[in-house]
Amino acid sequence: MNVKDDYKDDIIFNEEKLKEALFTHDIRAFRNEYLLLHPYDRAIFYEKVELELRKIMYHYLSPKELAEIFETSEIDEHEYKQFLQEMDTTYAADMISYMFVDNAVDVLNELDKSQVVSYLTLMNKESAAEIKALLHYEEYTAGSIMTTEFVTIPQNSTVSSAMTILRNEAPGAETIYYVFVVDYDNRLTGVVSLRDLIIAHEDTLISTIMSERVVNVLVSEDQEEVARMMKDYNLLAMPVVDFQQHILGIITVDDIIDVLDEEASDDYSKLAGVSNMDTFDKNSLSAAKKRLPWLLILLVLGMLTANLIDLFTETISKVALLAAFIPLIAGTAGNSGTQALAVAVRGIATRDIEDESKVKLLLREAGTGLITGLVCALFVVGLIYIWKQEFIIGLLVGAAIFVSIFVATISGTFIPLFMHRMKVDPAVASGPFITTLNDVISIIIYLGLATLFIGDL
Amino acid sequence: MNVKDDYKDDIIFNEEKLKEALFTHDIRAFRNEYLLLHPYDRAIFYEKVELELRKIMYHYLSPKELAEIFETSEIDEHEYKQFLQEMDTTYAADMISYMFVDNAVDVLNELDKSQVVSYLTLMNKESAAEIKALLHYEEYTAGSIMTTEFVTIPQNSTVSSAMTILRNEAPGAETIYYVFVVDYDNRLTGVVSLRDLIIAHEDTLISTIMSERVVNVLVSEDQEEVARMMKDYNLLAMPVVDFQQHILGIITVDDIIDVLDEEASDDYSKLAGVSNMDTFDKNSLSAAKKRLPWLLILLVLGMLTANLIDLFTETISKVALLAAFIPLIAGTAGNSGTQALAVAVRGIATRDIEDESKVKLLLREAGTGLITGLVCALFVVGLIYIWKQEFIIGLLVGAAIFVSIFVATISGTFIPLFMHRMKVDPAVASGPFITTLNDVISIIIYLGLATLFIGDL
Repeated sequence: MNVKDDYKDDIIFNEEKLKEALFTHDIRAFRNEYLLLHPYDRAIFYEKVELELRKIMYHYLSPKELAEIFETSEIDEHEYKQFLQEMDTTYAADMISYMFVDNAVDVLNELDKSQVVSYLTLMNKESAAEIKALLHYEEYTAGSIMTTEFVTIPQNSTVSSAMTILRNEAPGAETIYYVFVVDYDNRLTGVVSLRDLIIAHEDTLISTIMSERVVNVLVSEDQEEVARMMKDYNLLAMPVVDFQQHILGIITVDDIIDVLDEEASDDYSKLAGVSNMDTFDKNSLSAAKKRLPWLLILLVLGMLTANLIDLFTETISKVALLAAFIPLIAGTAGNSGTQALAVAVRGIATRDIEDESKVKLLLREAGTGLITGLVCALFVVGLIYIWKQEFIIGLLVGAAIFVSIFVATISGTFIPLFMHRMKVDPAVASGPFITTLNDVISIIIYLGLATLFIGDL
Repeated sequence: MNVKDDYKDDIIFNEEKLKEALFTHDIRAFRNEYLLLHPYDRAIFYEKVELELRKIMYHYLSPKELAEIFETSEIDEHEYKQFLQEMDTTYAADMISYMFVDNAVDVLNELDKSQVVSYLTLMNKESAAEIKALLHYEEYTAGSIMTTEFVTIPQNSTVSSAMTILRNEAPGAETIYYVFVVDYDNRLTGVVSLRDLIIAHEDTLISTIMSERVVNVLVSEDQEEVARMMKDYNLLAMPVVDFQQHILGIITVDDIIDVLDEEASDDYSKLAGVSNMDTFDKNSLSAAKKRLPWLLILLVLGMLTANLIDLFTETISKVALLAAFIPLIAGTAGNSGTQALAVAVRGIATRDIEDESKVKLLLREAGTGLITGLVCALFVVGLIYIWKQEFIIGLLVGAAIFVSIFVATISGTFIPLFMHRMKVDPAVASGPFITTLNDVISIIIYLGLATLFIGDL
């Protein structure tokens, strides 16, 4: 979500005073106080206030004024529908038409087809056309987050004529700090920053001060890739083009911040087995719905492990102490697996991994597995000896922990890399496999060895 | 890391051609090709190329030109030291003095005190003074990431005089898209965006078009809080002030993107028990060092669990099948705990949680725990009956899973909230506690019940 990247002011506001004004139907007092606020703060108030007061606000604020509120990041996507239903349909349509196109599209994407159509038919042709043009782009592509409100200048213009164009376009454009230069056929040929423009002499030809090889992305590019590029190249806006280099729109830095943020909490929630956790749940049931699938999968896989242990009941009934260390071993394997998994998944997300060879990476992880496994094994042998003066059982546990940490670390790296290659999202799919694999291997080694050396126990 | 927020061009470059030029000591060919690249791409080449070639680059590039490369995000903080050591000391000092102050400080923070001093003494007084001024700010505060290269104008100036100031300052300033207005005592009194400036008539008084209540942060503010504010208020730059509202510096949006990125991978890595994983390890040993502490802590805590199970050896030796389900139960408790933990930690980080009452949150999680617990319990009873026609053992496992999921979900929420209140980072500290707590509780219930009903087994 983005508002024009102008600098707006004020962070503290008087909630009571605003409510008071609404209660007493004092429109002037309300508008004087409210419109002074930063759109983000207006959104906070708008969101919090009781329904009946919000309904009054719809009469006190113009669709255009409300549009600014809807463009802040405070209003969550799943709230759009509800808020829009509170409004008079034409009022809502007007408001959407006043939003920046990319944000308007975000809003409409949350609604049912029928609603979208009714809003589009109610708003002026021009806005409707702009919105329709963006609506058909696939989610998570550059096209889906770009805006069409940007400034282009013909490459044969001078600095002064460019400044004139800027001054005229400024009010509508989402950013004017980069000006994109196009040829007669609207193909992207260069870019000039406003910084360069105001330094340059006004008779200078744009073509002489513009950068000719512009960083740009295809409209079909993945939005996370765009975000990474803008972060790396430190751009405030990225031009989006088609195969013929025609400029279709721009993506501004504030949209990119949101993308990076989502991407991060996304990987994070998947590691924890909570799918799309980024929006915070408002009730238990929906939270449970999100978490159950994962828990149930792991239960089924856990039964495999139980099944396996069951094969060794004889050994266990002889030396019940063996059972005591099963969770310890499985747990440790799980932990080291998760660590390796986290490093790999994060590395894939931030593309650090692509910079180096997969083989080198696996070898390094193998080394890490050996070291951590060895240390933990020796450590646990010591612990068990101190605690129970049991040396042989200690050795069994140590051996199991050593091997399972080693395997867990490698699989925790290999499996996500493999899935990434297979175009499966490694973050979501890797977890259960690795956990189960670790459990199975560690238990086979542990109870297997135990059964062999049962005589010495 | 940030370069001037100008729009630079070109993303693809000819690595071989550049190397060739260095080998043949063709300085002109090298500079012609190299300086056309975006600083980020220059950094990629600089980083990759062999040491001896890089040494040649130090002769072919001016300290100022190299400074631009060092300001890209491609150069990792832990690489600064090594690269600087390759350079002639005065050359290095010069280079640092040409960097934006905030980046120069980032570099120096990676070095030993003695090195810092030697560099500071070698560079010109002015830069040294600017850097020293920033060096003493605590890490992770606004002061530590702000730059002092920003543009201020007196509040009594006109648009045209402001533009003149801008044109002169533009080359040195990190951003000129916001101009901060100050009074005679350099106190922040307002802000004007370049957008407003170029639209306004040149005789207009700044005081009439500036926003008076500027969003700003104290120099001691936490950097994550600053990042959140800039994201929410959609700012390209944030002024940093002292208690008397004197403007000390600005923080630009690109620095904030890095902060948000680090913060995210930070929480993520802590959830997985890999401290500060954000930089990707280049060798096994350092990776092992990072992961071992966590593994060892969990081993010790795991011994508690083992100790506990050991109390029930008698029961287990009678019905060894009981042991088969211990990992299943502990695992499920662990998983649901991690889910709750992830939601809470992420909620705290994104401040979603602050918007609502802690009590409501805990109640909701309790509800989630009840639902998920119940479903999983019934599910597992079914599984065990199908698999082993064991009904009573199934009930025991089910009961244990129900209670432990319930407890795990609540503790997974309560503990991080409590730690947050106690000003301990919930992401890093919560994990082991919750895991152990879950194991202990689930096992007591499971084996406790089993011992009670041993007759029926």
